[in-house]
Amino acid sequence: MNFCSHCGNRVQRAVPSGDDRERAVCPACETIHYVNPKVVVGSVCIHDDRVLLCRRAIEPRRGFWTIPAGYLELDESAEEGAAREALEEACARIEIEDLIAVYSVRRARQIQLLFRAALPTPDFGVGEESLEVELVAWEAIPWPELAFPTVHLVLERAMALRGQRGPLVPVRQSVPD
Amino acid sequence: MNFCSHCGNRVQRAVPSGDDRERAVCPACETIHYVNPKVVVGSVCIHDDRVLLCRRAIEPRRGFWTIPAGYLELDESAEEGAAREALEEACARIEIEDLIAVYSVRRARQIQLLFRAALPTPDFGVGEESLEVELVAWEAIPWPELAFPTVHLVLERAMALRGQRGPLVPVRQSVPD
Repeated sequence: MNFCSHCGNRVQRAVPSGDDRERAVCPACETIHYVNPKVVVGSVCIHDDRVLLCRRAIEPRRGFWTIPAGYLELDESAEEGAAREALEEACARIEIEDLIAVYSVRRARQIQLLFRAALPTPDFGVGEESLEVELVAWEAIPWPELAFPTVHLVLERAMALRGQRGPLVPVRQSVPD
Repeated sequence: MNFCSHCGNRVQRAVPSGDDRERAVCPACETIHYVNPKVVVGSVCIHDDRVLLCRRAIEPRRGFWTIPAGYLELDESAEEGAAREALEEACARIEIEDLIAVYSVRRARQIQLLFRAALPTPDFGVGEESLEVELVAWEAIPWPELAFPTVHLVLERAMALRGQRGPLVPVRQSVPD
């Protein structure tokens, strides 16, 4: 951050009074610009004991496989965001079930809230951010071709929970990314 | 947001290509400025079947009671953030136990991750953002003087879980705020 998004002046790095961290502060209008982690919401979508995977059409990690997930938008709940991502990336209408993982990913500045969801019918398609979308058997998950460490972790988690009914306690974990 | 934080030009509202929402976009350097919900982390801290409450010294809701909670910072996990807030607001060293609530608070643009925590010894103090800090018996919680709806909800939740050992399934809820 170089300029104040409120008044356009160049910002300075300073520790505001009463604070203990450096922030971008505007010397003109005195706005303090806080930068915080973002929320990623996503889901392991299951139909007939197979899991919905998307091959990424965008960077980072283009060509690698992931679950439908993305940044939570304003004006939506975590569950609504996760359902929206499945619709956007895999044209899939899912039913959110259990929160199965909460990952703190410091380097990516993310908190990830990942759900298990049902895909009631095997209807899906290839969304704009995907190259391919497939329902994959657990034993056919392309582990070395997964896009991110948390995709690996949450698929392992969902596999361990296979056949187990909810509600479930989510795993909580700090992930080095 | 009026100005581009990257180059200082005035931003415009536009739907970026491939997107379906209006964003603040810089016509000069083409930066898209995404605005997302922030993560609030906090905890219901318990010592000897009493709960740690803080009377707010800052707006909004100055003078009302709350649990130690605040925005998650970069470079910390959700649990570390919740522990930091207890130290800052109540000079309390807590041990995070279970995630007991995930609230989506649209109007405040927040996702709240709220934990149950142990306060092993009754040592605490009045942090800079607090007027008073007290260990309060469940039956003495000042319900009409709580600062926010989610404080009310999470204290009800913690009260319902009283004496119950974890790990626990967190309640998930959209809160109108």
